[in-house]
Amino acid sequence: MKDIKIGLIGFGTVGSGLVKILTDNAALIEERLGCPLVLKTIADHDIERDRGVALGGATLTANSDEVLDDPEISIVVELIGGTGAAKDLILKAFDKGKHVVTANKALLSTYGQEIFSVSEDKQLNIGFEASVAGGIPIIKALREGLTANRVESIYGIINGTANYIMSTMTNLGGNFADVLKDAQELGYAEADPTYDVEGIDAAHKLAILINLAYGTAVSHEDIYTEGISRITGLDIDFARQFGYKIKLLAIAKADGNEIEARVHPTMIAADHPLSSVEGVFNAVHMVGDAVGPVMFYGQGAGMMATASAVAGDVIDIARDIRKGVAMRVPPLGHSKESEHSLAIKDMAELTSLYYLRFTAVDKPSVLARISGVLGKHGISISSVIQQGREDEGDVPLVIVTHHAKERDLLTSLSEIEQMDVVVGKTLFIRIEETCGSAD
Amino acid sequence: MKDIKIGLIGFGTVGSGLVKILTDNAALIEERLGCPLVLKTIADHDIERDRGVALGGATLTANSDEVLDDPEISIVVELIGGTGAAKDLILKAFDKGKHVVTANKALLSTYGQEIFSVSEDKQLNIGFEASVAGGIPIIKALREGLTANRVESIYGIINGTANYIMSTMTNLGGNFADVLKDAQELGYAEADPTYDVEGIDAAHKLAILINLAYGTAVSHEDIYTEGISRITGLDIDFARQFGYKIKLLAIAKADGNEIEARVHPTMIAADHPLSSVEGVFNAVHMVGDAVGPVMFYGQGAGMMATASAVAGDVIDIARDIRKGVAMRVPPLGHSKESEHSLAIKDMAELTSLYYLRFTAVDKPSVLARISGVLGKHGISISSVIQQGREDEGDVPLVIVTHHAKERDLLTSLSEIEQMDVVVGKTLFIRIEETCGSAD
Repeated sequence: MKDIKIGLIGFGTVGSGLVKILTDNAALIEERLGCPLVLKTIADHDIERDRGVALGGATLTANSDEVLDDPEISIVVELIGGTGAAKDLILKAFDKGKHVVTANKALLSTYGQEIFSVSEDKQLNIGFEASVAGGIPIIKALREGLTANRVESIYGIINGTANYIMSTMTNLGGNFADVLKDAQELGYAEADPTYDVEGIDAAHKLAILINLAYGTAVSHEDIYTEGISRITGLDIDFARQFGYKIKLLAIAKADGNEIEARVHPTMIAADHPLSSVEGVFNAVHMVGDAVGPVMFYGQGAGMMATASAVAGDVIDIARDIRKGVAMRVPPLGHSKESEHSLAIKDMAELTSLYYLRFTAVDKPSVLARISGVLGKHGISISSVIQQGREDEGDVPLVIVTHHAKERDLLTSLSEIEQMDVVVGKTLFIRIEETCGSAD
Repeated sequence: MKDIKIGLIGFGTVGSGLVKILTDNAALIEERLGCPLVLKTIADHDIERDRGVALGGATLTANSDEVLDDPEISIVVELIGGTGAAKDLILKAFDKGKHVVTANKALLSTYGQEIFSVSEDKQLNIGFEASVAGGIPIIKALREGLTANRVESIYGIINGTANYIMSTMTNLGGNFADVLKDAQELGYAEADPTYDVEGIDAAHKLAILINLAYGTAVSHEDIYTEGISRITGLDIDFARQFGYKIKLLAIAKADGNEIEARVHPTMIAADHPLSSVEGVFNAVHMVGDAVGPVMFYGQGAGMMATASAVAGDVIDIARDIRKGVAMRVPPLGHSKESEHSLAIKDMAELTSLYYLRFTAVDKPSVLARISGVLGKHGISISSVIQQGREDEGDVPLVIVTHHAKERDLLTSLSEIEQMDVVVGKTLFIRIEETCGSAD
């Protein structure tokens, strides 16, 4: 049987993983695809460095046009990353009539609409499973397996660096700065960790998930994004006392004609399945109106796990090519004609439970004054932990609220922070009462 | 755009769930499929009972031929269950040139080879996502998303009844008989619970997963199957002391030209993701050579969750029909020409850690005599718990072994059970040192 030829542009870590899979599992892939899958050409600006993987018969070139202009190549894999050259390469690949596979979440969360639109217009597939949650086949699940469901909510642990830091602080102690430093030394965090620890990377991925689940385009810039750098061991300990764990969650929920879309540290029940997702692992928990709660767990990054998703997409498209079809499933699981235009809900309108940690002067009147302000704004208190003073100075006062509107909370906090008995800014963490816990 | 018409045979619980999804989510499904999906005819021997779901425009008939002989119907959904009439219906549907969706694990684990072979020969799709782990899209993940991977191991919690009983015994106490009785009253266990609690249902599902993952046909009858009815609260408590939980696991592992295939109560690390799967929830944990550990979690049964999987299959096939193709992916993810013939490994050859609970006369020499026999057969001991006697009588003596061969263990136990200081049969539970724990 005729083989299917692919080209790779970007021979970095994930690219090397892809080459390794295609070589190591060539026989198995041929059995599953029904014909050989041949990597014909690899383009990378660095053609000297030894990546430690056998190239098979592939040609290595510094000129990406050798991939894009080759009429034998039917699938182009873009793994150079970034939002500049990658976009041009993908559009050029479409122009040349080639299907595309990419892992580029930054690109898709910025230029996704344009790229997906060209893909549909030209009836050429684009696979991007690797762009969210690494090796976990969550995009296929949303686009196909669970496609009969109306998605009620998505909770994602979709940044391994942030989850590693939160897990380590929770399980082994340590403050944010020290744990981050260790993570950097272990290679789990970048030298500039901002994207990961401030939730920006998670917001990029959430934008893609929302587009798939809700059929509406949102920009990651419109997603409320708050990182984990302000979380302390004290908050983790208090969370434990209330039966919660703190995770950096990417959250999307349907709410009438609006969508909640937010990334922030979140307290969730310690026995929720997401609470057991530790270290660099990722998980996406979602609730569908028919399927109920489901969760998908695995490695969200890394050479081989990410390459597994890229290779899965390549095989998926190759199966289409064998049958002479394309665009069996549109990029986002629905055609662009049926795209909705749902607004992101204003965070001030959010209703949530809140954990509030005040730093207060240790006086008996403090709780009464703080709860008075909260009460005035319609916020009632569910629990209080007031620690005694060990020595002279300020003490933490922790309050968990009943359901409150974020606007009212922020108004209350700005009043409370004016009090002479309260020191500095209040730390607050949203608490999610998720369904899908295993009981 | 032209619609796609389907017929349903079997209007029970899952059938009613399917009708509800197709009605409630008709607009959403049309957006995702690109054309209307119309349920034209429902056949069931009982056409009187009110299922509490709106039929839309569907005709209800007692004659399944009104589905099978209707040239307008292109997909037949078989939800009558059992291995008799269901098989004939499916083969007849293929004869009439119709694609098939079924949730029938008993049928597929018995006649799967024949049914899959006809499906391939006639180039007509068969969807069976609902046959394993209910709403969890595990079959699509194995067949497509993770298809670039060589599967190293599968661990499944794939029987909700057994998991409910084990979870309840673990979290709330109680003995097997009482918890089973409660489960029956709650509707979580059948009046005759044998299939579920003795692991037979899990073996049916494991046979299907093995065929998908390893490309080899195995009969559920060849899978070693042991249920949970002998597990006591004592064992659960000892497991906890060793840092384990006990779960009924369906296990498959590649081992050269053989496959380990077994269903039995298993001790796994308490911090393994599978350990947090509680109640009637299901989960499939697998390790792929590229993706590493992944886990899929959700409801393994129930009207709507199972119907979600059935509807997902229907839409998947309808997407093929729209494009004029079929058999894009063969039923088992590989063509029957590339089917392997791997043998199931003899359980006597299994190497595992073992938990052994002896009931012994409380004499100082007992441990020495038991460990002497184990040592003679090359089995070394990793831990011992010897409880003091509270009053006159026998005491439990618990031993955890290092890696041992099951043949040697069984030989040792039959010798030990002859001793005058040992009472009755030894309870032993295999311990899995799984990878994929989140650390």
